[in-house]
Amino acid sequence: MEKILVAKIGGNVIEDEKVLASFLQDFSKVKGPKILVHGGGKMATKLADKLGVKTEMIDGRRITSSENLDIVLMTYAGVLNKKIVAALQKNNCNALGLTGADGNVIQAQKRPPQFVDYGYVGDIVKVDGVIIKNWLEQNIVPVFCAVTHDTSGQLLNTNADTIASEIAAAMSPFYEVSLFYCFELQGVLEDIEDKSSIIEYIDQLKYKELQDQNVISAGMLPKLKNCFDALKKNVNEVHIANADFVKDNSIKHTTLCL
Amino acid sequence: MEKILVAKIGGNVIEDEKVLASFLQDFSKVKGPKILVHGGGKMATKLADKLGVKTEMIDGRRITSSENLDIVLMTYAGVLNKKIVAALQKNNCNALGLTGADGNVIQAQKRPPQFVDYGYVGDIVKVDGVIIKNWLEQNIVPVFCAVTHDTSGQLLNTNADTIASEIAAAMSPFYEVSLFYCFELQGVLEDIEDKSSIIEYIDQLKYKELQDQNVISAGMLPKLKNCFDALKKNVNEVHIANADFVKDNSIKHTTLCL
Repeated sequence: MEKILVAKIGGNVIEDEKVLASFLQDFSKVKGPKILVHGGGKMATKLADKLGVKTEMIDGRRITSSENLDIVLMTYAGVLNKKIVAALQKNNCNALGLTGADGNVIQAQKRPPQFVDYGYVGDIVKVDGVIIKNWLEQNIVPVFCAVTHDTSGQLLNTNADTIASEIAAAMSPFYEVSLFYCFELQGVLEDIEDKSSIIEYIDQLKYKELQDQNVISAGMLPKLKNCFDALKKNVNEVHIANADFVKDNSIKHTTLCL
Repeated sequence: MEKILVAKIGGNVIEDEKVLASFLQDFSKVKGPKILVHGGGKMATKLADKLGVKTEMIDGRRITSSENLDIVLMTYAGVLNKKIVAALQKNNCNALGLTGADGNVIQAQKRPPQFVDYGYVGDIVKVDGVIIKNWLEQNIVPVFCAVTHDTSGQLLNTNADTIASEIAAAMSPFYEVSLFYCFELQGVLEDIEDKSSIIEYIDQLKYKELQDQNVISAGMLPKLKNCFDALKKNVNEVHIANADFVKDNSIKHTTLCL
């Protein structure tokens, strides 16, 4: 089977214009079919502040009111997604910017309120791998932002790590899939204070250990869960690495395995 | 040849949520391949006001500064385009929201400053009709907002009427093309004060007459130019009509002819 790269960028890779431009250049040079998924970084919070819209957070997760959803659309689907697409085009990479509503690619459902009502937040129900494959075969490079829809007209804010994991899984019947989570660090750290303490391999046993020891950051745990979900759904390789990993696969990083 | 509809909506059809929802429902029901192009209405100006960004206008045309371009991306490519796509999906119409940068569909060049520097405004150089045709053959309904790119990484604000005209022309080698400009009035008015004074046919002679008599509104003249440009590039039919024209072709409207 042909290889495909699904890369997810977030954090500083999105925030810092130079880092982003450099990553997009490297990503453009990757041969063969590829897909990019991007988070939003702090742009949404900054715009919300400017507009006087309150951003409520519970356990590090944004509560998405109707006003917040508009801000997510403005920043993720509007400014960020389109600037990434234009930059990729500059690098001769035929990018196509997408939310899950476009082409009905990612169907989700509004998360049912239990202890917390997260607002317009979507949990993915289905990814249409066939339409993505059709685009890839036209040499198109899909670029997804963190927005899906419920097929009844409602757009939904959706975790970009989960989108990357589900898209990678949806590609697995057609390709040998590598999923890269790229960010500013070199990988998952044993000691958050020591940037060189990269854990090179994490399997499910190690994952449980890390959870029990409470050593890794709160934001990293759901990311690891997304990694294992992808591996369980036949994604071939999953790595958490610095953005430079896209151009140099030999740099130290974290590899996930079941 | 198969028929295709290229519809452009603007003004009140975009501004008024109910009118927009009703139009999108009617548009979804149109059989066969179709393309939608939308303007932005006043949303960009409203957001600019909220953010304290000045919107300079010369002769009814927006001067697009870098900050204004971000606002255009937020409103046109972000909120409006994605809400239209989600609403069409609700109506079982497989919409794909696009700027000209996506799939490199519309290449433009930054308008060279002469008497006026319009800022990040694009004049269309080329529309890739083949990629649009490929999508249409997958039953995808492309939905364009008023943004293009220069292929060197710069996004550009571009007149939606012109985008509709150029896309219609780019479809003419493959389809029998009907181009509808839909807005709140019934057509081009002989007397701006009298909404029933619809001019049913405008040919180039009549167009010149109208220009000389100075009877039609300033905003209508470039729209008419776009209509004639499309006809000259082998678009089969061009109409200026109320949004209801999409469901009822028998209502009074303006038809353009060479």
